[in-house]
Amino acid sequence: MNGLALRKLDKLLHPDSVAIIGASPDKKKVGYAALRNMVYSGFKGKIYAINPKAEQYGEIEGVKVYKSINDVPDSIDLAVVCIPARFITSLMEDMGKKGVKYAAIITAGFKETGPEGKKLEIEIVKIAKKYGIRIVGPNILGVIDTSAPMNASFAERSPIKGNIAFLSQSGALLAGILDWSRAEGIGYSSFVSLGNKADLDETDFIEALSEDQHTLAILVYLESINRGRDFIKVCREVTRKKPVIIIKSGRSEAGSRAASSHTGSMTGADTTYDVAFEKCGVIRADNSQELFDMAFAFSFMPIPKGNKIVILTNAGGPGILATDEAERNGLELAIISPEFKSHLKEFLPPAANFNNPIDALGTAQGEDYGRVLELALNDEGVDGAIVILTPQAMTEGQETADEIVRVHMKYPDKPIVSIFIGGEILGPSIYYLKKNRIPCYPHPERGVKAMAALVEYARIKNRPVDNEIPDLKRNRNKVKQIFDKVKSENRVNLLGTEAIDVAKAYGIQTPTTMLAKSDEEAGIFSEKIGFPVVMKITSPDIVHKTDIGGVKLNIHTKDEAIQTYKEIIANAQKHHPKTKLLAVDIQNMEPVGRELIVGSMNDPQFGSLVMVGLGGIYTNFFKDVSFGLAPLTVLEAEKMLKRTKTYALLKGVRGEKPSDISAVIDTLLRISLLVNDFPIIKELDINPFFVYEKGKGVSALDVKITLDQ
Amino acid sequence: MNGLALRKLDKLLHPDSVAIIGASPDKKKVGYAALRNMVYSGFKGKIYAINPKAEQYGEIEGVKVYKSINDVPDSIDLAVVCIPARFITSLMEDMGKKGVKYAAIITAGFKETGPEGKKLEIEIVKIAKKYGIRIVGPNILGVIDTSAPMNASFAERSPIKGNIAFLSQSGALLAGILDWSRAEGIGYSSFVSLGNKADLDETDFIEALSEDQHTLAILVYLESINRGRDFIKVCREVTRKKPVIIIKSGRSEAGSRAASSHTGSMTGADTTYDVAFEKCGVIRADNSQELFDMAFAFSFMPIPKGNKIVILTNAGGPGILATDEAERNGLELAIISPEFKSHLKEFLPPAANFNNPIDALGTAQGEDYGRVLELALNDEGVDGAIVILTPQAMTEGQETADEIVRVHMKYPDKPIVSIFIGGEILGPSIYYLKKNRIPCYPHPERGVKAMAALVEYARIKNRPVDNEIPDLKRNRNKVKQIFDKVKSENRVNLLGTEAIDVAKAYGIQTPTTMLAKSDEEAGIFSEKIGFPVVMKITSPDIVHKTDIGGVKLNIHTKDEAIQTYKEIIANAQKHHPKTKLLAVDIQNMEPVGRELIVGSMNDPQFGSLVMVGLGGIYTNFFKDVSFGLAPLTVLEAEKMLKRTKTYALLKGVRGEKPSDISAVIDTLLRISLLVNDFPIIKELDINPFFVYEKGKGVSALDVKITLDQ
Repeated sequence: MNGLALRKLDKLLHPDSVAIIGASPDKKKVGYAALRNMVYSGFKGKIYAINPKAEQYGEIEGVKVYKSINDVPDSIDLAVVCIPARFITSLMEDMGKKGVKYAAIITAGFKETGPEGKKLEIEIVKIAKKYGIRIVGPNILGVIDTSAPMNASFAERSPIKGNIAFLSQSGALLAGILDWSRAEGIGYSSFVSLGNKADLDETDFIEALSEDQHTLAILVYLESINRGRDFIKVCREVTRKKPVIIIKSGRSEAGSRAASSHTGSMTGADTTYDVAFEKCGVIRADNSQELFDMAFAFSFMPIPKGNKIVILTNAGGPGILATDEAERNGLELAIISPEFKSHLKEFLPPAANFNNPIDALGTAQGEDYGRVLELALNDEGVDGAIVILTPQAMTEGQETADEIVRVHMKYPDKPIVSIFIGGEILGPSIYYLKKNRIPCYPHPERGVKAMAALVEYARIKNRPVDNEIPDLKRNRNKVKQIFDKVKSENRVNLLGTEAIDVAKAYGIQTPTTMLAKSDEEAGIFSEKIGFPVVMKITSPDIVHKTDIGGVKLNIHTKDEAIQTYKEIIANAQKHHPKTKLLAVDIQNMEPVGRELIVGSMNDPQFGSLVMVGLGGIYTNFFKDVSFGLAPLTVLEAEKMLKRTKTYALLKGVRGEKPSDISAVIDTLLRISLLVNDFPIIKELDINPFFVYEKGKGVSALDVKITLDQ
Repeated sequence: MNGLALRKLDKLLHPDSVAIIGASPDKKKVGYAALRNMVYSGFKGKIYAINPKAEQYGEIEGVKVYKSINDVPDSIDLAVVCIPARFITSLMEDMGKKGVKYAAIITAGFKETGPEGKKLEIEIVKIAKKYGIRIVGPNILGVIDTSAPMNASFAERSPIKGNIAFLSQSGALLAGILDWSRAEGIGYSSFVSLGNKADLDETDFIEALSEDQHTLAILVYLESINRGRDFIKVCREVTRKKPVIIIKSGRSEAGSRAASSHTGSMTGADTTYDVAFEKCGVIRADNSQELFDMAFAFSFMPIPKGNKIVILTNAGGPGILATDEAERNGLELAIISPEFKSHLKEFLPPAANFNNPIDALGTAQGEDYGRVLELALNDEGVDGAIVILTPQAMTEGQETADEIVRVHMKYPDKPIVSIFIGGEILGPSIYYLKKNRIPCYPHPERGVKAMAALVEYARIKNRPVDNEIPDLKRNRNKVKQIFDKVKSENRVNLLGTEAIDVAKAYGIQTPTTMLAKSDEEAGIFSEKIGFPVVMKITSPDIVHKTDIGGVKLNIHTKDEAIQTYKEIIANAQKHHPKTKLLAVDIQNMEPVGRELIVGSMNDPQFGSLVMVGLGGIYTNFFKDVSFGLAPLTVLEAEKMLKRTKTYALLKGVRGEKPSDISAVIDTLLRISLLVNDFPIIKELDINPFFVYEKGKGVSALDVKITLDQ
């Protein structure tokens, strides 16, 4: 049993008693494999086999068979379900009455097969809820925990014991990785197939495994996320303790969404995952190779203090390749101090390279490697080491590996990653390194990337606490009234003045705007606002106002305003003859500022995305935009803006004065509060959004808001 | 011997007789390893061992030892040199007299050790030239050819026989890859260590190997390129026959160059390699893993006709990962025709996915794989197949592998790439696949990328012939006169009017520009040009004219011109008090167009890079620029422009009229001719460069030209 009890899912990963429902003596059946795996896993609790043919079978693999779960004399923590789907509803009732805590439902034939299966799945979950049973699956390979130890799966083999937890939404991938990892020497603490995630999902397991002392890092393969907001909340905490590395498939389905706003058109479905992962400190692996390359490093090595790395090699070429990759991935080559250098000169040949990457030359012996490594890890300016070996005439593979292991044991707080380029000759030393918990890679770039992941995680782990959502003054009621009115009129698009009023209620700086419904009003209102004014068509049907001659700038007199009103209405009627609601927004003419776009787009999974970036004609071409998930903290809003290239423009270019960056950030925070307070906002676009010189604020010239149906 | 004689380097890669200079019975010595490798390589020609202690040694490994090369009774094609560097000059003389054709100089201690070594290297090359000996190296692992067969290296093992040639500037990397490849099952036709490249270099070998019938693809590890222009010329031809895939290290050293022009500041040293490789059809591998993943595919599979791929899997997850990667890499998922689909339905279970990626489900047997694969490769709409297998309960690894091999033999013209996710269970079938020449990868993304490389090469191989450099009318003499004058005055920076005149001489559209050297001239010239005019300071010392108040627009009268002249000169004197040559360029005021930047930067290796991209304040932020190598063909100039995001702007946005794209391309071609005709031009910048509406041309408002010292 686990010394330190798991807070959550403890009796699932470390049960005291397990029942295999549908246990079978037929070696081709899943019910046999599941029982066999549990029996041979080293599990120390009680195992019960359940099969209606109990009398006929008697015992399977030495385990007594019961006819029904009702006949089991003791309580059951975990039921491993292998019987056909159609029998599972009644089984759930039995399990409920028996007080079973967890059911790992291996059986397929649920949601993944269509509406019928989905119905069955819902029913099962309903019964489970009634009795408080928690379900893993259905449609899974199973659940394995090597520290319990227990193997509640029908996998052909067991994973090697280790300290990586792997959760996978694809059972087959899990099976493949299990098989591959045994050959590669990667060990696991837990191995969980998530299946259809009818009940327990990634968030539950990530939370539970964060408390598991046997797990150093959590790897996840995902196709979707069940509860986006909970996921973020949980991972924000977990990633301060352990790395969570996710490979999320389905990028290609993303494309751009069907959306009427600029913001929407620039938000791929996959963008949200990137933003969500960033927000909660999850590392996103680019591909499977990278995922497991990282696993190796996290499994065997400590988290470094910084990004200053020494690269040690016995050959120039691979050293340069490693250096290239290091710089591409944010690693810094540590400066070799004069003292360090003079020590190196004591034993390395004069032709060696004493700068970083340190080239000890082809003649370097194992001992040389050990001495350089010790000097490096003993140096305060060095956070970790990358060791490259190529098999040359005088190369000592085994001795070099020995030295790496020795130095790592002496300096266990600084990570070492090894790159042994070879196979036949270097094979035994590569095997030795892995056995001795030194990550080893066959190509320079892969090793460097793994080290970069350690450094990246150090940054994540130690990031400042950033939970405070600024509670800015705002008028919720006013906004509610406007939305209620819009909904009562069966509209989803707000009129220009309505949207401006919403923005105003949340303290976003906007020009004075009034809605004129006749040429007469146009004259009166523009006089009230003060010339010059801007006039813009307003109609729920007209999206691209400029294109139809619906926007007129620089109107200087009352007469001109009256005339322009007529013109705009005429243009609109020409292009949209069926439109009924036609009127004109009159706005004071704001000075021209630097043009940004800000906006928001609701994501059903994670909440609302807030966007900021370059506005104007370049918006769609350079797509220099950046996203954050509402509610934003101040730090997040700042980070968002800083990620754009436009930020450099805002700081002031070639003698220009800097723009009012803090007013932009303030606006982002206000938008974030608005869309967070009102999830009914489907899309919000402020375009153009002018930024003026520092201290002179911003102006939301045109606000567009669309509500959910 | 090779049936089809190699045009070049034939007697190096397929010699009739080889002498090992410095052959030794001491097993620790390179001279022993080199002799042993040649003897056991299966080499069918004559081998001579040379050592001054011939009498003492008699024979080594059954080969008679001669005291000197002079004593060898026959002619020698290839001498493998293992003696210390200091003895090599006199050896070269002996070899010359003996008529040795090639010398593979394994010995180190030359250029790589410093000035002394460099001197020695130059001397050796000089003697070699005198006698017509061609040198590989010095400082190499050696040269191996598995078809000869011959192994003139001191490598510990021989590579597996295969059809990939690998050239490496790092001998140690070569040794590592050799060792690694033996374990991975990758075979080679030639294995060449380039070393210091004192004589023969990458270009020589690429050219020679393009004629080698045993070589299907050429892989290269490079740190530098010796003869850039020849490299491009040769590779343009070779890549129409065989893929050339290069990993070029030293990206990180690139950074941005010290340069005074915009163009220069945006051109990293590594950019040139990208542009050069693109120009000649070389595929650049991003990292070593990718290089050898590609090697596998090129070694075993044919080049597809197009990019339409079928993905076949027995598990959803890896299928989605593969689909993601396919779309990221330009592969298209073939549409499964109704007929194809109805065939699939005959044998796959109804729950299978009949669209692409085809998911045959976990129950898929080897036979199912075979049937789907046959249907796919028999389909006209399919160019290749990616086959994914995960080890599930009913999975038949060996049978599936058998079927893949069988179908490949039936459809040898369409590539198959396999991805078997596993190690222990699937290990034997993975081994079987490789043995039977089916590329196999452990992770979906790696296999997909390899397939994408095949498709990418198909595009390169079949690209239209594009060799015609347009011979536009231009006035070379005029330019020569201007440059001569500038050089005679010991200047490198051209004055504004000089640069404008150079541009004009090459037919580049420029505003009328005159140089005023006094306020009086300013008045007269501006009247002559016609108001309004622009006035700009001109001085060899002043680079950022606007920043010091050296540029004034919109001057409307003669008096204003006289006054402005004084102002500009005063501003310049204030900021650059030591400047002597001060005058003012007067230009007619051109209408405002869309702002681009065009320019050129000389690269010592490859010639001149031409650049085009977004101009104005955004230039430095978005760096939306693209490069081409002079002399440009029309197609290349077009491609360059199309690669920028700005191109979309030029085509016309939201109802705007399109810009004069053909005038931009014409300008690029003229710049290309100019910098190609005059390699003395170090940097050229046209910024701003205005483009007007289609048919209305362009205007090179400000031309800056710097010549080489």
